[in-house]
Amino acid sequence: MNYSGPTVFELGEIAALKLAVKNFRKVETTLVGSGDDAAVVAVTDGRFVVTTDTMVESHDFRTEFSTGYDLGFKAVASNVADVAAMGAKPIALVVAMVIPKNTTQMWLEDFARGLQAGCDELAPECEIVGGDLAAGEQIVIAVSAHGHLAGANPVLRSGAQVGDNVALAGTLGRAACGLDLLLHQDKSLAKAYDEWVAVQLRPTPPIQLGIQAAGHANSMLDVSDSLALDCNRLANASDVSIELDRSKLEGYAAVLELAAQSLSARDDLARDPMDWVLYGGEDHSLLATFPQGSEIPRGFKVIGSVVKRGAVPVSLGGSVLEPRGWDSVSS
Amino acid sequence: MNYSGPTVFELGEIAALKLAVKNFRKVETTLVGSGDDAAVVAVTDGRFVVTTDTMVESHDFRTEFSTGYDLGFKAVASNVADVAAMGAKPIALVVAMVIPKNTTQMWLEDFARGLQAGCDELAPECEIVGGDLAAGEQIVIAVSAHGHLAGANPVLRSGAQVGDNVALAGTLGRAACGLDLLLHQDKSLAKAYDEWVAVQLRPTPPIQLGIQAAGHANSMLDVSDSLALDCNRLANASDVSIELDRSKLEGYAAVLELAAQSLSARDDLARDPMDWVLYGGEDHSLLATFPQGSEIPRGFKVIGSVVKRGAVPVSLGGSVLEPRGWDSVSS
Repeated sequence: MNYSGPTVFELGEIAALKLAVKNFRKVETTLVGSGDDAAVVAVTDGRFVVTTDTMVESHDFRTEFSTGYDLGFKAVASNVADVAAMGAKPIALVVAMVIPKNTTQMWLEDFARGLQAGCDELAPECEIVGGDLAAGEQIVIAVSAHGHLAGANPVLRSGAQVGDNVALAGTLGRAACGLDLLLHQDKSLAKAYDEWVAVQLRPTPPIQLGIQAAGHANSMLDVSDSLALDCNRLANASDVSIELDRSKLEGYAAVLELAAQSLSARDDLARDPMDWVLYGGEDHSLLATFPQGSEIPRGFKVIGSVVKRGAVPVSLGGSVLEPRGWDSVSS
Repeated sequence: MNYSGPTVFELGEIAALKLAVKNFRKVETTLVGSGDDAAVVAVTDGRFVVTTDTMVESHDFRTEFSTGYDLGFKAVASNVADVAAMGAKPIALVVAMVIPKNTTQMWLEDFARGLQAGCDELAPECEIVGGDLAAGEQIVIAVSAHGHLAGANPVLRSGAQVGDNVALAGTLGRAACGLDLLLHQDKSLAKAYDEWVAVQLRPTPPIQLGIQAAGHANSMLDVSDSLALDCNRLANASDVSIELDRSKLEGYAAVLELAAQSLSARDDLARDPMDWVLYGGEDHSLLATFPQGSEIPRGFKVIGSVVKRGAVPVSLGGSVLEPRGWDSVSS
């Protein structure tokens, strides 16, 4: 998308924000919306869930690949996934932004539309209730997301019990595959496999399944950095070990096989799509454990089981699954 | 302060954060603290207040003037002031940070100590319940702050009534004076007037007075950008006009007179300390209006009155007070 017209800087912060905020839809839980020193949000059970996450230009995204709309959508997706991973319903976001001085108002409004579209599609009862805009060298998007547990206990990553089924809702490896497609010099590949590129640019985590898992799952977390890394985190937090079933993961890899072959045909580098599935991040799927014999919400797929803590926190088909993946600072 | 030793990048995000988080003290309202996908915080009246604010290196601060500790303290101060300006008690913060790759662990821990010191001094019932760390070109600190209204109505900027007394809690002009001292090439000046420099580096807004004003003030806001700008905002939001009494503001200027003279003696530029008082930002004082005849909490000083909306939103001694001050994007 080509952005043109006046910059946010030319319009001034207040005027620019007023125009952007027009894209936001109000929800019932917002008692005082944006425009004052702070917003006020209702959480009738007397508790709120809060998480924050940051996206930085050049490190987490590139404006040559992501439109403003894409970035708004992704900022919502990655944050509401963390709320849903507690078993809570996302109800309110605040968005702090740093933008370079040459950022156009058109870009800012496209970003705002992406934020609202992310809420509409993933968390329709969630409102952008506040924000802040500052000038800087590169785009930074820092979202804080808030949720309501509606009386349920929060689902922690430390609650897994020996005997639990390990289950996953959402996709695996697609966002990482999409990133490799985007980064490849043959730009036709990203067009050919635009479905995987779309997961990278606008992930759609299974928010409703996270909310449904509250009261059922013993533990849950958002797979943002990689299945391998986040399984290790869950195992360590719960002081258990996890055995993953390779046969249950093969389906995630199979759909990416053709893209892997096309990439490899262009540059003679061998690619195993299972690497995307195990070590790729940013699908923002939900990893949960459910008590043996209990009902598992439709949409979660069993991929392994929880066993007594052993020397190996996470194994896959009998081999150690190293905690490799995305580290936001050292990557 | 000189920072040395390993970088955050060398230690890795997780290890670096673990060390930094050790500086944080727990409070009673935190049901689930940092370390999971999200935190859970109790707000027994079923509502929470939320605001977000960003500080950007080179634009909002310079590391040659501000230590990590200073920045942590200021990030807390500026955010809890917005919570208090609603009449709410600050109870939880999340801190999203972008740091350059060469940032040392020592700096990060100094920053964390500053965050905790800000809570200890300004909002002792507030905990840093979560955060995020990302790599980027310049330091960005995005804090979201949360408060509890404890059954009170939020105090909006739109509630001022004709006849209200306009009152101020906190200082005016000191942070702006401190900035001019820091920016002056004669570095001895910042040492001579270190009290004003301290307000710029580590502002101490009157948080408890904001909480006390709930149930008494008709309107309130945090004076972050300038008295002139924020008075205009309050007048416009409430559809009233404000008449400020110049004689009531002279005391704020008088204490800065000597610093103004010292600066002017060095560079022959005339300075009127009243400019700092009217147009300077970052003291994070609280501007409120109280019903005529009602008790005003000790610590608030009456500086003017609310009158029927006229052609001039804010006047000072009969003249128009233009909405000049700090705009975070265009400044």
